[in-house]
Amino acid sequence: MGINFTNFLSSQSKNTKMMDFQDLDHLDGLSISVLSANLYKTNRDDLSMFYFRNGANHASIYTQSKIVSENIKWNLNQNTKKVICLIVNTRNANAFTGTHGYESLKKLSDLISKGLTEKQKQDEEFPRKINPKEILFGCTGTIGEVFPFEKISHQIPNLISRIRYTQNKFIWMKAALGIMTTDTKPKIAMEECKIGSEKIKIYGIAKGSGMIQPDMATTLAYIFTDASLSNDILSKLLKKNILNTFNAISCDGDTSTNDMVSIFATNSINNSKIKSINDNKIKNFDRALNNVLLNLAKRVVADGEGASKFISINVSKCKNEIEAKKIAFSIGNSPLVKTAIAGEDPNWGRIIMAIGKAGPKINLKKLSIKFGNLKIVQDGKLYQNYNEVLAAKYMKSENIEISVEVFTGKKDFTAYTMDLTKKYIDINADYRS
Amino acid sequence: MGINFTNFLSSQSKNTKMMDFQDLDHLDGLSISVLSANLYKTNRDDLSMFYFRNGANHASIYTQSKIVSENIKWNLNQNTKKVICLIVNTRNANAFTGTHGYESLKKLSDLISKGLTEKQKQDEEFPRKINPKEILFGCTGTIGEVFPFEKISHQIPNLISRIRYTQNKFIWMKAALGIMTTDTKPKIAMEECKIGSEKIKIYGIAKGSGMIQPDMATTLAYIFTDASLSNDILSKLLKKNILNTFNAISCDGDTSTNDMVSIFATNSINNSKIKSINDNKIKNFDRALNNVLLNLAKRVVADGEGASKFISINVSKCKNEIEAKKIAFSIGNSPLVKTAIAGEDPNWGRIIMAIGKAGPKINLKKLSIKFGNLKIVQDGKLYQNYNEVLAAKYMKSENIEISVEVFTGKKDFTAYTMDLTKKYIDINADYRS
Repeated sequence: MGINFTNFLSSQSKNTKMMDFQDLDHLDGLSISVLSANLYKTNRDDLSMFYFRNGANHASIYTQSKIVSENIKWNLNQNTKKVICLIVNTRNANAFTGTHGYESLKKLSDLISKGLTEKQKQDEEFPRKINPKEILFGCTGTIGEVFPFEKISHQIPNLISRIRYTQNKFIWMKAALGIMTTDTKPKIAMEECKIGSEKIKIYGIAKGSGMIQPDMATTLAYIFTDASLSNDILSKLLKKNILNTFNAISCDGDTSTNDMVSIFATNSINNSKIKSINDNKIKNFDRALNNVLLNLAKRVVADGEGASKFISINVSKCKNEIEAKKIAFSIGNSPLVKTAIAGEDPNWGRIIMAIGKAGPKINLKKLSIKFGNLKIVQDGKLYQNYNEVLAAKYMKSENIEISVEVFTGKKDFTAYTMDLTKKYIDINADYRS
Repeated sequence: MGINFTNFLSSQSKNTKMMDFQDLDHLDGLSISVLSANLYKTNRDDLSMFYFRNGANHASIYTQSKIVSENIKWNLNQNTKKVICLIVNTRNANAFTGTHGYESLKKLSDLISKGLTEKQKQDEEFPRKINPKEILFGCTGTIGEVFPFEKISHQIPNLISRIRYTQNKFIWMKAALGIMTTDTKPKIAMEECKIGSEKIKIYGIAKGSGMIQPDMATTLAYIFTDASLSNDILSKLLKKNILNTFNAISCDGDTSTNDMVSIFATNSINNSKIKSINDNKIKNFDRALNNVLLNLAKRVVADGEGASKFISINVSKCKNEIEAKKIAFSIGNSPLVKTAIAGEDPNWGRIIMAIGKAGPKINLKKLSIKFGNLKIVQDGKLYQNYNEVLAAKYMKSENIEISVEVFTGKKDFTAYTMDLTKKYIDINADYRS
């Protein structure tokens, strides 16, 4: 399985290369260290450290689940102004692991803060004493298994000793691979933009695959920038830009206990101070951040478990965005629609079904549906020149676009999802074996 | 694929046989006529008539979809006190078929009413002139294809000529088979009970398979009784008893444009007049009706597309029934839970995930989860004697019971669903080919 990504990158930045993977390089103020703590027993990388030698401003959006993992509880409890590092492990979600899971993070943060305090003494002109509260954790993997504290704590010294102050594309790729679970491809995206006259980098990695659902800070995604931006501005930008990116994707309608999207600013570039997200000087950054998030979100969907097709569902002329989103996800989460697309069957009746069951009222006399540029339904009736042969040919594409016009207003929403294949069942019927 | 039904039948009536199919026989006042109008081009039965020679009182619950089929529009427009017959066709849903679809039903009802008026003249001591408004339609099959008016109208005379005044188990089986689409088994259920001193029959047939979703008058289900009951009483009994039967099942979370559950009373038995559903004399009937509906609903789930396991999800000790239902269906509709069960993996972490994403608050310190009688989670922690080997063994059963205690109140709800298998994808990826 594998969907071509080249159609995804619609960037404002000239630096974006229209290829599968962009080359991320050095981002001032960030060091990445990745290794195998043997959590998978296959020697694959599974433990990553993102170290901000001068600290980083930050903002995160977490899962909306009523049961959250221990690392999210930890992160929410710290409420620290600056973060010194983010530690991400795979294989174990540290969810439903109780006191042991939480205490493990407490002990790890002690170990890490001591190790990094030592490192600061060796490397920095003005070393800081690191507070355990400055450490955040990302965890992903199986829920309910004992958190592998011993294996991870054992590797902390190695993780710290591998810190280098210049990053290249290989370490980014290693990190993107090191946070994967059932993903088949690493997810990397970047943009460059300007704040005022200063050049700024926005780099991101993500992992996805299962339990991808709308309305949540879905999956793990980490964005890094060298810009100087306050926690407040980062938080507002992240909330604003997640709506039509990570909150617009769905793989299977399920939600993780561990979802986490974070942005970190190393403050390495001395750009003009931004006090409001309405400031004109932040407009380019705002757009570039949206591009990075959308690029990553689309990659998560395209690599959704068992995906063979990437599906965009645009619902427009709706009373409001909430209704447009409801209809878009009613289509995007329908197993009947998703299996029809997997079977390359232009079964538009199932789109009708999904629109009908969504909830919002629609103007049935005007309703229009298109597959790509092919008119299927017009003025609430099967299009008079509807051609099943052409429609069937269109369904053979790897990128399927479904456009629905509802004619109850002026708002629109685009959702992204993938098809439902036998491979999804394969992956999930024996995920743990 | 096929799930054993013998565990389903928990009946108050001694007449219920603990076997795959109960033997339905004569029900006074009802005649069934079934034939092939060649809608499938395979000569299978696809057109059924349920004829009430003296008319029948009736009540129906229809789909909640915002886009409904033309036959449901027709039925809702008639608002007739008595029904003379119900015509059910498969292969074509008569949904999104526009004016032609609706006008076809109008023409069919003219034809049928004329034919039946003739038949009344021949057969009845006091013949009635049949009004086209006394005819209801059930349609199921593909959405959006031209309604096969010619093929159906051509068979109306044959349908009427085949009417016999005594029914047996073969004609019931023929009818149950004749309304099927992708179902692999006919769905038949019966109960006998008493209203006062009079013996009453309640017979039912249903079809299901795809687009089965909670909160809807799901699928096609037709219940027939020889009791004398008013439209008002029938309507109240149906609404009450659908809540924990057809509205408690889910196959894939999708909803049809055509869902229809109806009850018809031929008034053949001169039982005591029932003026309220709180009347003690209707208690037995009430319970028997619930049994018939639950029996049919469970058969629909057990024969859900690609089902290899029947799953009951009981959520109890909840603040209210709505929250219990939300949690039950969050588990029951989760593709990750359903694929794990298909893979016989006791992946209870996914149950946790589904409880967490459901929405309602839970008492995490007391939360308990059981698979059958096996304790999995107790007091919000993995049960201390949890035995993965036993749990894995349990998952090999054909009937999986998941019990969740939420500890926020006293209400409960049981949902029924099936697992998600590769066969589901097979069936739905090329439904139309």
